Amino acid sequence: MILTDLATRAYNHNWRLDPVVRSLLDTDFYKLLMLQMIWLRYPKVQATFELINRSRQVRLAEVVPESELRAQLDHARTLRFTKKELIWLAGNTFYGRTQMFRPEFLAWLADFRLPGYELSREDGQFVLRFPGPWTHTTLWEIPALAIVNELRSRAAIKDRGRFALDVLYARAKAKLWEKVERLRALPDLVLSDFGTRRRHGFLWQSWCVQALKEGLGGRFIGTSNVLLAMEADLEAIGTNAHELPMVLAALAGDDAGVRAAPYRVLEDWRELYAGNLLIVLPDTYGTAAFLRDAPDWVADWTGFRPDSLPPMEGGEQILRWWQARGRDPRGKLLIFSDGMDVDSIEATYRHFHGRVRMSFGWGTNLTNDFRGCAPFPTDGLDAISLVCKVTEVDGRPAVKLSDNPRKATGDPREVQRYLRLFGAEGMAEKPVRV
Amino acid sequence: MILTDLATRAYNHNWRLDPVVRSLLDTDFYKLLMLQMIWLRYPKVQATFELINRSRQVRLAEVVPESELRAQLDHARTLRFTKKELIWLAGNTFYGRTQMFRPEFLAWLADFRLPGYELSREDGQFVLRFPGPWTHTTLWEIPALAIVNELRSRAAIKDRGRFALDVLYARAKAKLWEKVERLRALPDLVLSDFGTRRRHGFLWQSWCVQALKEGLGGRFIGTSNVLLAMEADLEAIGTNAHELPMVLAALAGDDAGVRAAPYRVLEDWRELYAGNLLIVLPDTYGTAAFLRDAPDWVADWTGFRPDSLPPMEGGEQILRWWQARGRDPRGKLLIFSDGMDVDSIEATYRHFHGRVRMSFGWGTNLTNDFRGCAPFPTDGLDAISLVCKVTEVDGRPAVKLSDNPRKATGDPREVQRYLRLFGAEGMAEKPVRV
Repeated sequence: MILTDLATRAYNHNWRLDPVVRSLLDTDFYKLLMLQMIWLRYPKVQATFELINRSRQVRLAEVVPESELRAQLDHARTLRFTKKELIWLAGNTFYGRTQMFRPEFLAWLADFRLPGYELSREDGQFVLRFPGPWTHTTLWEIPALAIVNELRSRAAIKDRGRFALDVLYARAKAKLWEKVERLRALPDLVLSDFGTRRRHGFLWQSWCVQALKEGLGGRFIGTSNVLLAMEADLEAIGTNAHELPMVLAALAGDDAGVRAAPYRVLEDWRELYAGNLLIVLPDTYGTAAFLRDAPDWVADWTGFRPDSLPPMEGGEQILRWWQARGRDPRGKLLIFSDGMDVDSIEATYRHFHGRVRMSFGWGTNLTNDFRGCAPFPTDGLDAISLVCKVTEVDGRPAVKLSDNPRKATGDPREVQRYLRLFGAEGMAEKPVRV
Repeated sequence: MILTDLATRAYNHNWRLDPVVRSLLDTDFYKLLMLQMIWLRYPKVQATFELINRSRQVRLAEVVPESELRAQLDHARTLRFTKKELIWLAGNTFYGRTQMFRPEFLAWLADFRLPGYELSREDGQFVLRFPGPWTHTTLWEIPALAIVNELRSRAAIKDRGRFALDVLYARAKAKLWEKVERLRALPDLVLSDFGTRRRHGFLWQSWCVQALKEGLGGRFIGTSNVLLAMEADLEAIGTNAHELPMVLAALAGDDAGVRAAPYRVLEDWRELYAGNLLIVLPDTYGTAAFLRDAPDWVADWTGFRPDSLPPMEGGEQILRWWQARGRDPRGKLLIFSDGMDVDSIEATYRHFHGRVRMSFGWGTNLTNDFRGCAPFPTDGLDAISLVCKVTEVDGRPAVKLSDNPRKATGDPREVQRYLRLFGAEGMAEKPVRV
């Protein structure tokens, strides 16, 4: 006789909703670092974020029921930072520093809630926009992406039997563990989880983080996911994102202001942060243009995060630039985080080993690689290239160019204007998979 | 807050014993078919079974604590056939036949319990003997093997963390599923689970059976495990084993009687069973000798189960023999069950396809293939060649020769005598892995 726990059984069968996001800390650490800066310097700016599905062939609105998406977004809006979470943010050490977050900022966070959203459907896609103060809309990026991605995963496995799901996850676990065993062969590897936004699901990301912790030991330095960092006693990892230069360029308005925006961001940033947080993300308007026009003090920053050039090419370009400015790259740091997987991590590691310090942010291919795992035919578990970008700032269009024009976002005429301002040096179209 | 079910938690932490064998039906079906014959024809015979570890390098008594082994054996002795089990044996159809088991036999089974055992240790091995009436000791074979094998598995994973075990089983599941997907490519495959005795554990065997059911559909015809057949509504599969000719030869005493024993068994058998149960196991004293001396009516039986020659060689030998006797092999059945795995199943299937009906009994490499699965170093999960053989019958030694002299068992002088009686034609030493 199997004795069933009636309370558990009844509870499980009466869920109104299985929330994708259960905590406002279930976001990337850099969002909080950026938010503190936004809250301090740009509290009045209005910034609209918008979901952009670069994998157009996947007709998301035909896969995920709109009612489910609304229910999850609505649920996320009910969340507050809990006392425990705020105490942890106040008391924890981040990047070796205590009190990374100011008490006034944390007091403000205590009242934070995610603002409203606008949701409609068009041509098989969701039109999902988050208008409002930048101080609020910025925190929608990660939960919005995590929600849409996880609802898509759930749709792909809906109606599959218990056994098929068992095989699916067994294979995914086995697959990830093979990767871990390969990475273990790189003695000086420094790697962190960057997979929150594109994850298959929250519980799966937790498993992946656990696998890296168990398998890589000290080579696994932490996770971008603040909630997982707190729960698993890991370092929270992250610096800054494209939204900062994008918003500042849009705010600038005139051509000189737009051209100065990428460096203006760094000036704002270094007033708040130091050390390993002084990482340049150079590709918002093209890495070549950024390096060409950069003031010399940028070369004193700790490192760069090349994000849209192939890793070897982007890294070499930055190494040459440091050397031309008389800096020794061996004291510098490169963070690689653009669609990395074991092959490219191994190749990049071997290529730069001994020449520069390296760190890898492993995202989609860590937390959402189910290729070949399903024992049933589906392409609904293949990761897609979904982003949530700032598109409008105080009524003006926001633009990103990137080194890969396929990752450019923004109003086409404004994109042309930015291209005129920054030039297209070094830009080359490459497929965007994740 | 995680709410724990206190009753479940307390229960799990207070297990005195996690039984390996929880039912007397957790045995191979052929043991029950043979037992019915033994009970009818040989109720007075005393037969001692004995554990034989052919993988001498594995010092079992240094791996498995004797107290644990005793606790499991003692627990098995507390088991009785339950009402539900006896009703199922009475009411179920086996091999297309109702009432396979006589009511008087089932009434006798209701009082059955496993007899005592003798356990000691010698040179790092267990000396485990089951003396008593053949009608009772015969049912020790499978639970004894299952218990020792599972206790060895448990020892190998003892003290490993939750996560390492998760990876272990994920990989084992992924590995088995790759095999299932390969086997799925063989359209006329007929396969059953023969993996009870050497299984990694009962729950793992259940998973394997479920995997075959889900993955192979109608190509998976059933399991030798009676309990799993009942619980999963599968066919119970199996015919007869070496113990029958071994006991009858030992009973015969004189040379003529020994030589006649393999055919005497078949005469006893066909008085009870018919159809697909008329399967000859020809290798007890060498397949060549068996075929050479066989009466013509043996060629009218449904098929053969070659068990110690390489499958192609053994199968061809039997095909030639059928043809020499004017029987068309296309109406006959060969059952391959000796250490099969996907490679040999595929090769054998392709070799004989269209020339003879085939069925595969997949044992150790189905239910105990953990090679390459552990994320920690261990050889404790590699299957070993453990058997439980009848060694003594009414005070006389019992002997098996086999086509592979490494699988021979029995008193060395008596083995020499049998070799003189049957000849060594066709015998060749081959490594015994499982």
